[in-house]
Amino acid sequence: MIQKISHIGIAVKNLQEQIAFYRDVLQLPFLGIEEVAEQKVKVAMFQAGEVHIELLEPTQEDSPIAKFMEKKGEGIHHIAYQVDNIEEQISHLQKQSVRMIDEKPRMGAHECKIAFVHPKGTFGVLTELCQSKHD
Amino acid sequence: MIQKISHIGIAVKNLQEQIAFYRDVLQLPFLGIEEVAEQKVKVAMFQAGEVHIELLEPTQEDSPIAKFMEKKGEGIHHIAYQVDNIEEQISHLQKQSVRMIDEKPRMGAHECKIAFVHPKGTFGVLTELCQSKHD
Repeated sequence: MIQKISHIGIAVKNLQEQIAFYRDVLQLPFLGIEEVAEQKVKVAMFQAGEVHIELLEPTQEDSPIAKFMEKKGEGIHHIAYQVDNIEEQISHLQKQSVRMIDEKPRMGAHECKIAFVHPKGTFGVLTELCQSKHD
Repeated sequence: MIQKISHIGIAVKNLQEQIAFYRDVLQLPFLGIEEVAEQKVKVAMFQAGEVHIELLEPTQEDSPIAKFMEKKGEGIHHIAYQVDNIEEQISHLQKQSVRMIDEKPRMGAHECKIAFVHPKGTFGVLTELCQSKHD
């Protein structure tokens, strides 16, 4: 079951410049910066109601976020849904013939288990499932 | 003040095909379809926690959503933030030198007052402010 939107990921070239916009202009509460080595990104997090806005700056040229920006420029990268049981959700999607990028969950930011759905199955919307460690 | 994310707008070519995905595969509660004549779109709405997912299908070739898809294909179109006072929020952004597409609010879906921020001021993320009629 999908419980809510966990976060919206936004691909950015310069984290500091955009942190200033989300923190000082939009005045969203700033939750800090985390580096996710596996995804080769630095992540700046903001709170907007029950959802996090995550700004994603690549730390290396071969980061998936760097490749995304080469093609599409800066902008919204993905929507992540919080689920109560990620293995069951992956299995449910596969039974409905939805293709997964990650057929098994892996670790994301904040020690969440995450899995990406293939964008071909979601009409171009890169969609992530995530299960927080507290569930 | 931004209260929360109101909705995420997704540009789609075929509403029925994608309604099936969000309703039957992701199993998000389906809230119905509304036509917004001014924006030349049909909107299918789903609930994901406190946020709505809005699928936007153009009803005419010169709809802003049709033009978006010509350039970028189907995918996430905008993020809308719910604010308590849209006139004050527009004025606050303008004081911070953020350019607005709509300098005055206009009517959107569900009788909300809405205004779009110019994407040049938001690093490529099309950003909407909206104030619900009940605020």
